[in-house]
Amino acid sequence: MSGSGKTDLDVPTDTLFGVNNLPYCIFSTLETEKRAGVRIGDSVVDLSVALGDDVFTNPSLNPFMAQGRDRWVDVRAQIAALIADGVPVGALHEIGAVALHLPFEVADYVDFYASEHHAANLGRLMRPGCEPLMPNWKHLPVGYHGRAGTVVVSGTDIVRPAGQRKTPSQRAPDFGPSRQLDIEAEMGFVVGVPSEHGVPITPDQFAEHVFGAVIVNDWSARDIQAWEYVPLGPFLGKSFATSVSPWVVPLSALEEARINTPVQDPEPLPYLRESESWALDIDLTVEWNGHEVSRPPYGAMYWSPAQMLAHITVNGASSRTGDLFASGTISGPDKQQRGAFIELTWGGAEPVAVGDETRTFLEDGDEVIISASAPGPDGTRIGFGDVRGRIVEL
Amino acid sequence: MSGSGKTDLDVPTDTLFGVNNLPYCIFSTLETEKRAGVRIGDSVVDLSVALGDDVFTNPSLNPFMAQGRDRWVDVRAQIAALIADGVPVGALHEIGAVALHLPFEVADYVDFYASEHHAANLGRLMRPGCEPLMPNWKHLPVGYHGRAGTVVVSGTDIVRPAGQRKTPSQRAPDFGPSRQLDIEAEMGFVVGVPSEHGVPITPDQFAEHVFGAVIVNDWSARDIQAWEYVPLGPFLGKSFATSVSPWVVPLSALEEARINTPVQDPEPLPYLRESESWALDIDLTVEWNGHEVSRPPYGAMYWSPAQMLAHITVNGASSRTGDLFASGTISGPDKQQRGAFIELTWGGAEPVAVGDETRTFLEDGDEVIISASAPGPDGTRIGFGDVRGRIVEL
Repeated sequence: MSGSGKTDLDVPTDTLFGVNNLPYCIFSTLETEKRAGVRIGDSVVDLSVALGDDVFTNPSLNPFMAQGRDRWVDVRAQIAALIADGVPVGALHEIGAVALHLPFEVADYVDFYASEHHAANLGRLMRPGCEPLMPNWKHLPVGYHGRAGTVVVSGTDIVRPAGQRKTPSQRAPDFGPSRQLDIEAEMGFVVGVPSEHGVPITPDQFAEHVFGAVIVNDWSARDIQAWEYVPLGPFLGKSFATSVSPWVVPLSALEEARINTPVQDPEPLPYLRESESWALDIDLTVEWNGHEVSRPPYGAMYWSPAQMLAHITVNGASSRTGDLFASGTISGPDKQQRGAFIELTWGGAEPVAVGDETRTFLEDGDEVIISASAPGPDGTRIGFGDVRGRIVEL
Repeated sequence: MSGSGKTDLDVPTDTLFGVNNLPYCIFSTLETEKRAGVRIGDSVVDLSVALGDDVFTNPSLNPFMAQGRDRWVDVRAQIAALIADGVPVGALHEIGAVALHLPFEVADYVDFYASEHHAANLGRLMRPGCEPLMPNWKHLPVGYHGRAGTVVVSGTDIVRPAGQRKTPSQRAPDFGPSRQLDIEAEMGFVVGVPSEHGVPITPDQFAEHVFGAVIVNDWSARDIQAWEYVPLGPFLGKSFATSVSPWVVPLSALEEARINTPVQDPEPLPYLRESESWALDIDLTVEWNGHEVSRPPYGAMYWSPAQMLAHITVNGASSRTGDLFASGTISGPDKQQRGAFIELTWGGAEPVAVGDETRTFLEDGDEVIISASAPGPDGTRIGFGDVRGRIVEL
């Protein structure tokens, strides 16, 4: 028993949200405005109440994330102590009683293309008859800037985008709702500590700058993308919405998930070399209308997130608190490990079973849920929760 | 003479900053923090002091820009009346006595590719032997997202970026400072009033959302760009720095500069059609170490800024206060109208005279100044000031 005024927590032993995880969120209740919380079991701890620190009353995690790694480590220890000792009454909410919001203000959003299997599949589909991988692909993590202002939290409905579409048989494009609406199952990384303009972040400085990780669904309109993307890359085919999970899992919770990157051949240039890899063994699951259709393995990615951040900043570009960079679609070598429907259905040519129905691309009313977890200490698992979205008719 | 406590302004008749212009800035002095000002002749009016409104004490124009067009028109009229009547003592600063800062917080930054001459020249240089324009080019304004966090104000030194470079004769890329550092002379447009996620902005709603225009220099490392840009577009070749002029010229000052867009054939899809064009007759001048090397004509652009904003949002993407979208390099049909050195020197093959020296790309210590002006009422000219930057050794 804890002392009076405190609540003991009943955390199931098989929870994905034990004391080794402690992911952060921004939540509100009927009584309280948006503020920072941390998840333990099926409860959310109100950090401003529990720790008495005003940084947690902000409606985004950015001010806390900017405080730096020593502070992140300290707060994590305080939260663990609190949970062991009993959480003050009034600081604890049942997960079902809170609304979850976008956990951070997105500064710049960069999306990579770091899965060899995905890049090769897309190359075969988009440029048939050519070498699937471009000559640069194994030398650098190919990436591009996405739209920061349309990053939304899990649960936000996705309105089917309209745009220019042109099939090979059409002489000119027409305009209308996308007929090839797709997902991209990805992991995203959130920068806490900014870097100076002109000073690159080395791979080994990754954990000094990156606060944590989220699941990302980079919704993609393949017909719009295919017509628009030469020569300057994807634009409207991606910019209508990007969904992120409400929980930011701190890097500290992912130590047990660290694995080696796959062998990189040719050896990357020195600025991309890591002393110890930040590749991560994270298992994702993609559900389409409640039916599992894919299990993308993040551990199979060619480029690690530390290599991505080093690449973003090697030209002197600064990174800011709230920068989000995502892995690109996670696809493994097997068909049932593909993280985008364009790959899973081979451009729509091979429909997949979704329960009793079949699908190529997303139909109005369809819902996609991507969840993820990683190994934690002592045989436990670290959950990322999920990112979900339902397609709404234009 | 005006009443006591007021200062009469001595505005030269041939000024580019008369009462028909009144561009906004963020400035500071030795005594004052960053705040909003407006330029008249060679003076800056401190708007918080002159108008007694706290919105102008913010260190960016965003809060004022978000207030909307009726408010912009009203403030413009108040400033004009104040100038006619005499500006309160203490509200006026000589231009030489103020420091100018980035005038707005950049939300998302989009760069277009809206000059047919530029796109065709780059196509010939980057994809020799192929059709210079991609099939999509005359159907939509091709654009991509750039890095918002590295937009800097005029006068900021530009550190030469490093990155992966690979010439056709090299088997693999090497790493080092860019050898092909270039400029792109552009015009940029700043969004004041945000749009709702899911609701496109039509071309005819342009002036309800866009607050004003700036000159943009989208610095480009051509060697880095050429190697990295397939298939997802430019990234590190552009993201190290983008410079903007410190003056935001309000759209209201540009009515006399409105002209028709060039004939667009094929006719654009309905969402890109304007009732009255927002093409603008703006003359730019590019100086390289003090020597004029080019006069890019903004009036020759294929796509208007209203068409660009309509395109950005037609898929339902929202636009936020502080969004910056730029035209892409402005190049006219003549060689001396090319707004990038890669075109002016034909990829470095035809060096240009810069005073007594010759140049292909930028050398350390070089300075570029891009200035611009447009027709105003009664034979006056509307100045945009300039955007300048000096290359600093890595």
